[in-house]
Amino acid sequence: MEIKPYKKDSEYSYTLGAFPTFELLKTRPEKVRQIILHSTFTDKEGIYEEANRHNIQVAVNDKLIGRLSDKENCFVIAVFDKYEDRLSKDRPHIVLVNPGNMGNMGTIMRTAVAFGIKDMAVISPGADQFNPKTVRASMGAEFRMNIRYYDSFDIYMKEFPKHEIFTFMLNAENNLTVENCRHEKLYSLVFGNEATGLPEEYLKVGKSIIIPQSDEVDSLNITIAAGVGMFMFTR
Amino acid sequence: MEIKPYKKDSEYSYTLGAFPTFELLKTRPEKVRQIILHSTFTDKEGIYEEANRHNIQVAVNDKLIGRLSDKENCFVIAVFDKYEDRLSKDRPHIVLVNPGNMGNMGTIMRTAVAFGIKDMAVISPGADQFNPKTVRASMGAEFRMNIRYYDSFDIYMKEFPKHEIFTFMLNAENNLTVENCRHEKLYSLVFGNEATGLPEEYLKVGKSIIIPQSDEVDSLNITIAAGVGMFMFTR
Repeated sequence: MEIKPYKKDSEYSYTLGAFPTFELLKTRPEKVRQIILHSTFTDKEGIYEEANRHNIQVAVNDKLIGRLSDKENCFVIAVFDKYEDRLSKDRPHIVLVNPGNMGNMGTIMRTAVAFGIKDMAVISPGADQFNPKTVRASMGAEFRMNIRYYDSFDIYMKEFPKHEIFTFMLNAENNLTVENCRHEKLYSLVFGNEATGLPEEYLKVGKSIIIPQSDEVDSLNITIAAGVGMFMFTR
Repeated sequence: MEIKPYKKDSEYSYTLGAFPTFELLKTRPEKVRQIILHSTFTDKEGIYEEANRHNIQVAVNDKLIGRLSDKENCFVIAVFDKYEDRLSKDRPHIVLVNPGNMGNMGTIMRTAVAFGIKDMAVISPGADQFNPKTVRASMGAEFRMNIRYYDSFDIYMKEFPKHEIFTFMLNAENNLTVENCRHEKLYSLVFGNEATGLPEEYLKVGKSIIIPQSDEVDSLNITIAAGVGMFMFTR
């Protein structure tokens, strides 16, 4: 099959680099169409072993790797079919409202899995979970999560009425303290777009929280805010 | 004067974009050599006001901006003289041991200032604080900090014998909990390189701390680890 550079409406995407490729093979091997190696890749055996276990075709193709990857340190790529998950009704969620940046989205996925949060709602429009840049920034952690896009926050809330909502906002009513992050078993941590934050109307939804911070900076980077928030809620 | 693209041994560097430029003008105006505007920049008045207050020359030069910036949304640049700070003996520090990535370094600066930590030691070799990429990632927060490079951690410790040392390591002896981050007034939070972490021998220095995390990920991103660590120590 001919592999083309990624587009948002492609039916497949690909991992860039060894770490996310092994993560994909470990967690969703049935989605992998084929693996492409650079002739200088050093862990060929490890890849062939995993590929054989799952009957996945492996090809060596330096030119194709060069065409698909914009970085020079990429030596292995797995082409995989896109898929759609359902979120668990029995576990906490993270909700990203209109995330704009693929690197940030991937970093938040990686942090979420590190802290044991494995369900993520994305309120559209939002960055593309399957863009290879998102996959790479997540270090493949996204393959361990359930991720689903929703047309609006209302639709999301209607599907999960038992989740207690916490919104992270600069004009919030509560500081992030141990007391203020006491929560029911089911909860959703909601974060806004990196440039604009959550719109005003989210103040009326659930409990709003701000991470105390100096006014000498504009705000915390969204990945840091999400990291601190998830740590405090899950520890 | 002729402005050349940045090199590590240049005597000057420059801010890229409005936010870090205004931060520089607010905090270290005496370092600014000149300001360069793109003809389409929308806040010319704001810049001229600040520049006049400090007798700084302003030039409109679209070509030069294009040459110095690799992004298309940069409309103002301030050229400034590099400088060297001393760290405060009376405040907590963050210490980065051999940081490799300029974007990460800038993000950590921005987070540190947000949480009120304004002194940073860098153990060489380390990313360049004055590279325009670092300055941009810090959103100019670095101009509010004292930053100093040290040839070794020993030299740093000898200069600040009263600082209680906390090292963030994956094989640490203590979890990051409220109890474990009780500290003296003076303390140093030490973080390693993003790919390799802190070398083994740092286990013997001070109190080692790990942020509890799932083994389903390789590790937390260094900027997230530093953000969570600084939050817990400063709240």
